[in-house]
Amino acid sequence: MIQVNRLSIDDAKLLTDGARAKAREIGVPMCIAITDESANLIYFERMDGGKVTSAIIAQDKAFTAAGARKATHLYNQACQPGNLVFGIHTAIGGRLCVVGGGLPVEVDGEVVGGIGLSSGTPQQDMECAQAGIDHFLANR
Amino acid sequence: MIQVNRLSIDDAKLLTDGARAKAREIGVPMCIAITDESANLIYFERMDGGKVTSAIIAQDKAFTAAGARKATHLYNQACQPGNLVFGIHTAIGGRLCVVGGGLPVEVDGEVVGGIGLSSGTPQQDMECAQAGIDHFLANR
Amino acid sequence: MIQVNRLSIDDAKLLTDGARAKAREIGVPMCIAITDESANLIYFERMDGGKVTSAIIAQDKAFTAAGARKATHLYNQACQPGNLVFGIHTAIGGRLCVVGGGLPVEVDGEVVGGIGLSSGTPQQDMECAQAGIDHFLANR
Amino acid sequence: MIQVNRLSIDDAKLLTDGARAKAREIGVPMCIAITDESANLIYFERMDGGKVTSAIIAQDKAFTAAGARKATHLYNQACQPGNLVFGIHTAIGGRLCVVGGGLPVEVDGEVVGGIGLSSGTPQQDMECAQAGIDHFLANR
Repeated sequence: MIQVNRLSIDDAKLLTDGARAKAREIGVPMCIAITDESANLIYFERMDGGKVTSAIIAQDKAFTAAGARKATHLYNQACQPGNLVFGIHTAIGGRLCVVGGGLPVEVDGEVVGGIGLSSGTPQQDMECAQAGIDHFLANR
Repeated sequence: MIQVNRLSIDDAKLLTDGARAKAREIGVPMCIAITDESANLIYFERMDGGKVTSAIIAQDKAFTAAGARKATHLYNQACQPGNLVFGIHTAIGGRLCVVGGGLPVEVDGEVVGGIGLSSGTPQQDMECAQAGIDHFLANR
Repeated sequence: MIQVNRLSIDDAKLLTDGARAKAREIGVPMCIAITDESANLIYFERMDGGKVTSAIIAQDKAFTAAGARKATHLYNQACQPGNLVFGIHTAIGGRLCVVGGGLPVEVDGEVVGGIGLSSGTPQQDMECAQAGIDHFLANR
Repeated sequence: MIQVNRLSIDDAKLLTDGARAKAREIGVPMCIAITDESANLIYFERMDGGKVTSAIIAQDKAFTAAGARKATHLYNQACQPGNLVFGIHTAIGGRLCVVGGGLPVEVDGEVVGGIGLSSGTPQQDMECAQAGIDHFLANR
């Protein structure tokens, strides 16, 4: 048997609080998704004004970050024609998302979940995802 | 009527033994998938610590290698903008995988199945897939 | 943070050993799938002679049993026209499987994974899935 | 290694000849699909006037009959609310077809492929599928 650590719903809301605050600060209403360490959805919130298409994209970013234990923007860097990783962006029916804005959530060096943001530029999405993690780690 | 040769479940386990041993040697827990010559799944194993997203990707690499009778990294090399192969990575709902790590299994010049590895770098995945084939050919 | 218990790959193989032995005893080669408590695939084996279509069905039975923490045959009983559960069989793109043969794996009252069998009658599939669980509980 | 017998393209055309002749006799232009023993498509023909929707349905009938080694109308009989098989009709994304008109093709007691007909009533589809098999067995 294996023991696994996983975000609780309270943890997920802490992550979201941090991401939402940053989204408000930069004036971009976001879709925010949190998955557990197995890449299954725990929490989702579309801020008033968040994009409809981003509801899926935010989920897929969180799914990818947790399931592959890798930030989506790192996949993005590697996913270039001529690199052996190229093509990963169409895997799992396109759910493997290589657009910046998905980050694994780590505690004590272990991935315990994922956070995905979408509605802004990838840079904005990444900034808000990181703000979520910073808030979570400082307040949990 | 056509006569076809196909991996048995015992063959699939031999392939997996070789791939798993190499994965342990390099310290990367892997997802390992084996398909028959018709690209249908025979065997799958997620080593403790293998990535969740790699469960599908390993299967799709084995599916592609057996079904197209071509290593996925060879598709990767060809799948570049300007080359007529480009775009093949979105085929079959994205199941045609061009990320390195899928190899056809050949016996006497005939493809009898496929092996797909995922969780490491494509180079690591390819190395473990090849180790599976080497072990199978030496011990069958 | 939440702590979760999950089947290891060794546990998955114990479950499979028990199911395979029963499948041999009744003379029906089976597809056998094991998922973790998050419904993600850990292990799959198609015995020589197992049905091609059962490769997916066995996985979906294990997915359903673990993910919903309910035996698929219990969903089957409830999934009748006029019952409010009816229609659940088309959920999740049809992956929520209500055909008998999927059982949650419980340890100390907690669901730690799922087992799905397919290729025989539902009754045979259920019998082999139960044999897998019995073997696991007796030998872990 | 396993040795498998499989329909050739010439076999597939024999099956189709028999099915097409019966379709003309009863005045119903049909979609005719032939799969190999692994449920992969070998041959497809939409007679002038065959239904567009039947192009997929005929393929799924042949897929099911070969992959599950069972006539689709037998699944239909069993797939009733209260029976443990109920729900099988939504499996594999709905590709597991329980509408009459798909038959496994057997030679010497071994399933070597499948034939699926669609465009008429299920009874007409079944009649033409059987005519295909009769013609094949008499002329191969």
